[in-house]
Amino acid sequence: MSTPFHTSRLVEFADTDMAGIVHFVSFFRYMESAEHELLRSLGFSVYTEIDGVPISFPRVAASCEFDSPARCEDTLDVAVTVRHVGKSSITYGFDFSDDGRDVAHGTMTSVCCRVEHGKPPVSIPIPDVVAKELKLLAGA
Amino acid sequence: MSTPFHTSRLVEFADTDMAGIVHFVSFFRYMESAEHELLRSLGFSVYTEIDGVPISFPRVAASCEFDSPARCEDTLDVAVTVRHVGKSSITYGFDFSDDGRDVAHGTMTSVCCRVEHGKPPVSIPIPDVVAKELKLLAGA
Amino acid sequence: MSTPFHTSRLVEFADTDMAGIVHFVSFFRYMESAEHELLRSLGFSVYTEIDGVPISFPRVAASCEFDSPARCEDTLDVAVTVRHVGKSSITYGFDFSDDGRDVAHGTMTSVCCRVEHGKPPVSIPIPDVVAKELKLLAGA
Amino acid sequence: MSTPFHTSRLVEFADTDMAGIVHFVSFFRYMESAEHELLRSLGFSVYTEIDGVPISFPRVAASCEFDSPARCEDTLDVAVTVRHVGKSSITYGFDFSDDGRDVAHGTMTSVCCRVEHGKPPVSIPIPDVVAKELKLLAGA
Repeated sequence: MSTPFHTSRLVEFADTDMAGIVHFVSFFRYMESAEHELLRSLGFSVYTEIDGVPISFPRVAASCEFDSPARCEDTLDVAVTVRHVGKSSITYGFDFSDDGRDVAHGTMTSVCCRVEHGKPPVSIPIPDVVAKELKLLAGA
Repeated sequence: MSTPFHTSRLVEFADTDMAGIVHFVSFFRYMESAEHELLRSLGFSVYTEIDGVPISFPRVAASCEFDSPARCEDTLDVAVTVRHVGKSSITYGFDFSDDGRDVAHGTMTSVCCRVEHGKPPVSIPIPDVVAKELKLLAGA
Repeated sequence: MSTPFHTSRLVEFADTDMAGIVHFVSFFRYMESAEHELLRSLGFSVYTEIDGVPISFPRVAASCEFDSPARCEDTLDVAVTVRHVGKSSITYGFDFSDDGRDVAHGTMTSVCCRVEHGKPPVSIPIPDVVAKELKLLAGA
Repeated sequence: MSTPFHTSRLVEFADTDMAGIVHFVSFFRYMESAEHELLRSLGFSVYTEIDGVPISFPRVAASCEFDSPARCEDTLDVAVTVRHVGKSSITYGFDFSDDGRDVAHGTMTSVCCRVEHGKPPVSIPIPDVVAKELKLLAGA
């Protein structure tokens, strides 16, 4: 059983659009931020060096379904679930709600990569110490 | 057979992130812009009034897979396909490429809604004149 | 003497650009968010109704000078000063720093407006209860 | 006499906010894009290498005043003026209008820098070939 990681997100004015609600791309920003907060909670960072190698987690896929609108100054609950930990990739699930009302739910798959500037990212195995923590969260 | 609608998108500096490549949320902005350009090409607009009713197309789902990085000042080719036209909803496919190289591909489902400010969007049938054009593009 | 209002801002990955630092437009988002947090601290909101009139604070001017780069996962200190409270307008100053290092400083002038959808914003006097609190902060 | 460089900008849905108009930070994105388009028109790029040195133009200051709202699908005229060319810095002026109506006007000062990843930007003289062209535009 996966244990969700919970965080919250205040909707800012700049996140809205002329329809008066949160613009859909804002949810992808929220997902990324929650992913990074989860990594920080494990003592890790989204952009770090391990043994002199710059490591980051570009995403290979992201999706979101929108159930009901969120509005400026709503404080959304964000539940992050680690769904799968592969050799290099991590798949997360995200559930956004506001006082129990479903707002949106999404998924994202990130890949652990060596990211040297000016070169294409190269996937590498997730460092053991991180993989171990993520697998605990995944309930694997 | 669906007929793709083609447009292009210049990658701007502000669309990139510290990994030196286009940030993934930018692709969702690109998809929305291409969708709206397609609507304009049919003489329609993303936010208009029909018989005094404000009409817009909030999305209920969006997804994207990222095949290879795009960089600042790349000019991406964007092929938009109308995959399905329902009573109220439209599903689009998007293929991003750069000189034949696959960059990303995504989907988005938008719903034709009456959007009165301060009220939740209410789905309504796609106006006949628009639905007809979209179905032609969908090859239905 | 003006009393600064302090808040902090975590730099997110999406706020950066390919130069590896915070993109300059992010600072304008940070300023707006700090302004709104200050308004909330006074029991007010950036988008509310007073006596049935929708009130908001569009800005008429914004500027920022950039002293040194900020990076992903920096936690910036943001000091907001109320510099001037006019009949309808408020001018704020913003000082961003990171552990004592100057990062950026900016100003913004917002105007209290009736904002009915589809009509141009119309400036109105700042409600007394808000003006009084802002003037206290301004040291006026 | 300075010769303005003209470009245009289509306002996209994602550039708007819940007040129904273009969000103010969008204008700073528009300014940056127009600056880069001007550089490209001179055969230059915002992020390039000269003699193996990565060159970019981080900004040290930006400001904008907002005269009247812009809305989704407006096509703004953008007039860029080169106001000053220093040893390392360039100051631009920007005038946004819509069918002759003033929308916004701003300024931006960028500094030619060597930008090696992970190091602070270091200002360097603007390459002669670029400085010469910019000075022609500045009417100096």
